[in-house]
Amino acid sequence: MGRTIGPRETKVADEDRLVKQVSLKSEDFSKWYVEIIRKAELADYAPMKGMMVIRPYGYAVWENIQSLFDRRLKATGHQNAYFPLFIPESLLQKEMAHVEGFAPQVAWVTQGGQDELEERLAVRPTSEAIIGSMYAKWIKSYRDLPVLINQWANIVRWEKVTRPFLRTTEFLWQEGHTAHATLEEAQRETLDILALYQEFVETELAVPVVAGLKTEWDKFAGALQTYAIEALMTDGKALQMGTSHNLGQNFSKVFNIRFEDKDQNLQFVWQTSWGISTRLIGAVVMVHGDDSGLRFPPAVAPVQAVIIPISLGNWKETVMPVARRAEEELSRAGLRVRLDAREEFTPGWKFSEWEMRGVPLRLEIGPKDIKEHKAVAVRRDVRRKEALPLASLAEAVPALLGQIQAGLREQARDFLRQNTHTTDDYEEFKRLIETRRGFIRSHWCGDRECETRVKDETMANIRVMPLDKGEAAAGTCLVCRKKSDTLAYFARAY
Amino acid sequence: MGRTIGPRETKVADEDRLVKQVSLKSEDFSKWYVEIIRKAELADYAPMKGMMVIRPYGYAVWENIQSLFDRRLKATGHQNAYFPLFIPESLLQKEMAHVEGFAPQVAWVTQGGQDELEERLAVRPTSEAIIGSMYAKWIKSYRDLPVLINQWANIVRWEKVTRPFLRTTEFLWQEGHTAHATLEEAQRETLDILALYQEFVETELAVPVVAGLKTEWDKFAGALQTYAIEALMTDGKALQMGTSHNLGQNFSKVFNIRFEDKDQNLQFVWQTSWGISTRLIGAVVMVHGDDSGLRFPPAVAPVQAVIIPISLGNWKETVMPVARRAEEELSRAGLRVRLDAREEFTPGWKFSEWEMRGVPLRLEIGPKDIKEHKAVAVRRDVRRKEALPLASLAEAVPALLGQIQAGLREQARDFLRQNTHTTDDYEEFKRLIETRRGFIRSHWCGDRECETRVKDETMANIRVMPLDKGEAAAGTCLVCRKKSDTLAYFARAY
Repeated sequence: MGRTIGPRETKVADEDRLVKQVSLKSEDFSKWYVEIIRKAELADYAPMKGMMVIRPYGYAVWENIQSLFDRRLKATGHQNAYFPLFIPESLLQKEMAHVEGFAPQVAWVTQGGQDELEERLAVRPTSEAIIGSMYAKWIKSYRDLPVLINQWANIVRWEKVTRPFLRTTEFLWQEGHTAHATLEEAQRETLDILALYQEFVETELAVPVVAGLKTEWDKFAGALQTYAIEALMTDGKALQMGTSHNLGQNFSKVFNIRFEDKDQNLQFVWQTSWGISTRLIGAVVMVHGDDSGLRFPPAVAPVQAVIIPISLGNWKETVMPVARRAEEELSRAGLRVRLDAREEFTPGWKFSEWEMRGVPLRLEIGPKDIKEHKAVAVRRDVRRKEALPLASLAEAVPALLGQIQAGLREQARDFLRQNTHTTDDYEEFKRLIETRRGFIRSHWCGDRECETRVKDETMANIRVMPLDKGEAAAGTCLVCRKKSDTLAYFARAY
Repeated sequence: MGRTIGPRETKVADEDRLVKQVSLKSEDFSKWYVEIIRKAELADYAPMKGMMVIRPYGYAVWENIQSLFDRRLKATGHQNAYFPLFIPESLLQKEMAHVEGFAPQVAWVTQGGQDELEERLAVRPTSEAIIGSMYAKWIKSYRDLPVLINQWANIVRWEKVTRPFLRTTEFLWQEGHTAHATLEEAQRETLDILALYQEFVETELAVPVVAGLKTEWDKFAGALQTYAIEALMTDGKALQMGTSHNLGQNFSKVFNIRFEDKDQNLQFVWQTSWGISTRLIGAVVMVHGDDSGLRFPPAVAPVQAVIIPISLGNWKETVMPVARRAEEELSRAGLRVRLDAREEFTPGWKFSEWEMRGVPLRLEIGPKDIKEHKAVAVRRDVRRKEALPLASLAEAVPALLGQIQAGLREQARDFLRQNTHTTDDYEEFKRLIETRRGFIRSHWCGDRECETRVKDETMANIRVMPLDKGEAAAGTCLVCRKKSDTLAYFARAY
C-alpha cells in the first residue's frame, strides 16, 4: 500500500489545466501550433530549455515515417549503419567551411567520469567528419564503390530559439552518406535522393513541395551544392523539409578518402550527404491541422481508425462484442485501429477528443446500427458520414483511408497552387508578402545584394531555385531589373 | 576527373593487412573475438578510444533484433517514445543510490555553442531520472496507469576497459520504464519482462540462459531488486544478457510521481525498468562462432542464404540466369538472400568468405546442377550438403533454415548443460573453475563475505540466484558450511 496524501496536495499544475483550452488555428496559428502538440500528446517540454520529449502518440508518427522511408532506402541499395555520437574537436576542424558553419551550435563534452578530457568531444551536429574518417579506412578500390550508407540517429545543435519538432536542441533524423567514383555519379545520387524525398513527402505525408537548388550562401557548410524540398505552411510561411548535398571532394581531400581506379591510379572519392528529420512531424501538424485539431494522413497516422461504441441501453452486452469483432478484423487486415471502450467518457466527448487528435476515420457502432448491420463512418478530412456494412469493414475501411489520403493531398496541393504567385514587379511582390505571404516566383539576377535587399525589406528570402522551371520565359531581376533566366522561389520561412 | 596520386602512396595500412589473418577460436578466444568482428565487418574501431562503429553487416543484426523484440513489446501493450539525451546534474542527483552508482561513468556536457553552461548536463547513462520527471507531469489518476513505455536509444558510460559490443563508451539499447498502481503489479511486470527476454534470446538468438535474481550488492543503482538473464560463452565465462529491475517507489518518491486512486487518495506509483543492448550481438558471436568464423542463427542473420554461381564454361549465360531467378524467388518468399556474382573471386574463395561471415546456408549452382534441376545446399552449422530441387527452393530453404536455427540452439543447450556443474564442496569448486570454468551451482548462505572470499580466490562471483531451482534440496554454504536453501550460479564473467 502506498502512503496516502491529503487533499490539499491534489492540485494539478496550472500549466496543465491551461493547455486543455486550445487556441484556434485560424486565429492564432503559432499559439495553436505549440498548444495542439501538447494537447494531442505528440510531445511535451523537457526540464531543459530547448529540448522536448516525443510522447508515444508523436513517436508513432516517427516510427511510421521511418518504416516507410527506410523501405525506400533499402529498395535503392542503401544500408544502415551506426557511427559514434562524439566527434573529437580535431576531426571536426579538418574541413574549414564545415567547422565554421557548425561550431556556434556544438555542445561539447569536456569531462568523462571524474576526468577532464584532453580534447573536447563534439556531440554530433552532423556526421560528415566521423564518417569521412572511417571511409578513409574502408575504401581502397573502385570495387568498394559506391558506398551507400545511412544512419538513423539523434543530433544535437545548440539553438537559441526553439519550437517543438521545428527547431530543438536535440532532434532525430536519418543522414545518408555516400561515396562514388565520379562527380557525375555523386550528382546523380544527390538528385535521385532529392526526388525520393519529394515522392516520399508528397505520397505519405500528403505534403506537396517545391524542389530546387539553394543559393551559394545558403548551402550546407562544406558542400559544393545543396538541394532542398520546401513546403508551404497554412500561415503562408515556408518550411525546409529535407536537404541533399553534393559534397564534391571537399571531405575526401581532407580525410584522405581515396580509391585505386581500374588503371591503378589513386583518386579521391566524390561524396554526397542528405537528411530528413522529426521536423516532418511539425509540417504534418501545420499543413493539415484545422480549428478542430490535427488531421493525420492515414499513411503516417498513429491510429488510422477509432471505433466508438455508442453507450445506449445494455450496450456492454450488445454493442461491445460487435465493436470488439470489428477491431479484431481491422487489426488483422493490417490497420492501426483503436477501440475506445472507456466508460468515464460520453461518445460525444470521444468524438471531439479523437477529432482533435487527428484520427482519419471514426467508426460509430450503436444498438440501432447493429440492427441494420452497419457502422457509421465519419471522415476527419471532410467530416462526411456514410454507412458501412459491418460484414465488409476490412475492405471498406482501407478504401476510405485511401480516399482520405488522396483528399488531404489534394487540399494541400490546392493551397500551394493558390498561394504561389508569379511576379517580377517588386512593388507587387512587397504587397503580396504583406497581404498574402506564400511562395513568390520571381526572376533573380544571381547577385547576393539583390536577395539581401528583398530580405531586409520583406523578411522573405530565396528558398530554392526550382529544378522544374515550367514554361517560364526569361525575365528581369525583381530588384535590379537586369535580364535573367534564373527563377527563384521567395518566401518568409521557419 | 580526380587528381591521380603516385604509386608510392598506395600502401595499405599495416593494421588492415594484419586483420586478414584471424586467430583460431579454439586457440585464442579473446584475440579471435576482436579479430573476427573486424574481419567479418561487423564493427570497426572509431578514432576515439573505447568507441566503435557498427558497420552495415553488424547493424543489420541489430535491426533484426529490434524488429523481433519490438514486435513482442507491442504485442504486450508497450509503446515507444523518445526522451532527451541530456539530463541536468540536479535531476540525476535526486535519487542518491542512483547518482552514486552512475556518476563515475558519466560524460558531461559543459559548453553549448560559445557559452559555458550554468549547470552540467549528463549524457544519459540510463534514463530513470529524466523519465521520472516527465511521469510526474503525466500521471494524475489511477486511470492513467499502467504506463508502459519503452525507448530505443544510445547510451554513454565512460568505460576504462572496452571491447567491441561487450563494453563500449557508447552503445545502443532499449530501455523500458513502467509505472503501476501496486507493488504486486510492478513485480509481475519485472518478471514478465525477464521471461520475455529469456524467450526472445533463446528463440531468436539461439542462446540458452539462466534467469534469476542478482545479489543486493550487484543490483541496479536505485532498484529494490534486479533480475537478470545470464548466458555462457564457449570460453566458459558468463555474460549478462539483459536486466529487469523492480524500482519500487524509490524514484516515484524523489520525483513525486503520484496518482489519485479510486478513493481519491494520492499515492506514489510503483515502477520498473529493464534493458537489452547491442551486447547481444557479442553474445551471438561468442556462443555460435567456430574456427571457420561466425555462425549466425537464421532469425537474426544479416544474410540468411548466399547463392554462389559456379564459374565453369559459359556460366554467365547458363548459370547466372538460374541463380538470379533463385535469388528473386527467395527474396519474394521474404528471405534475406544475396547472390555473389563477383567475377574477381573464385567460388572456393567465396565459400570461405561467407562461411567466415556466418551465413547459415550456402546454395551452389553450377552447369551440372542445372542439368539435374538442383542446387547444392551447404549448412553452415553442421557443414552438411544436400541437393535441393530448383523448382521448390522457396519451400525447401525456409525449412532448412528452421533446422539450422534449432540445431544451433540444441548445440548451445548441450554446451550449457555440459558446463553447468553442481557442488557444495569448495575444493571441487576451485578445481572446476581452474580447469573447466562454466557455471557452478552451489548453495550459499546469503552473506556477502562468503561471496567475496570466492571472488578473491577464484575470480568467480554470483551471477544469479535462479528462479527455477529444479529439484535441488537444501544444502550447506559453499564457503562457511552453514545450512542453506539458497542456490546461486557462480561463474567468471565478462
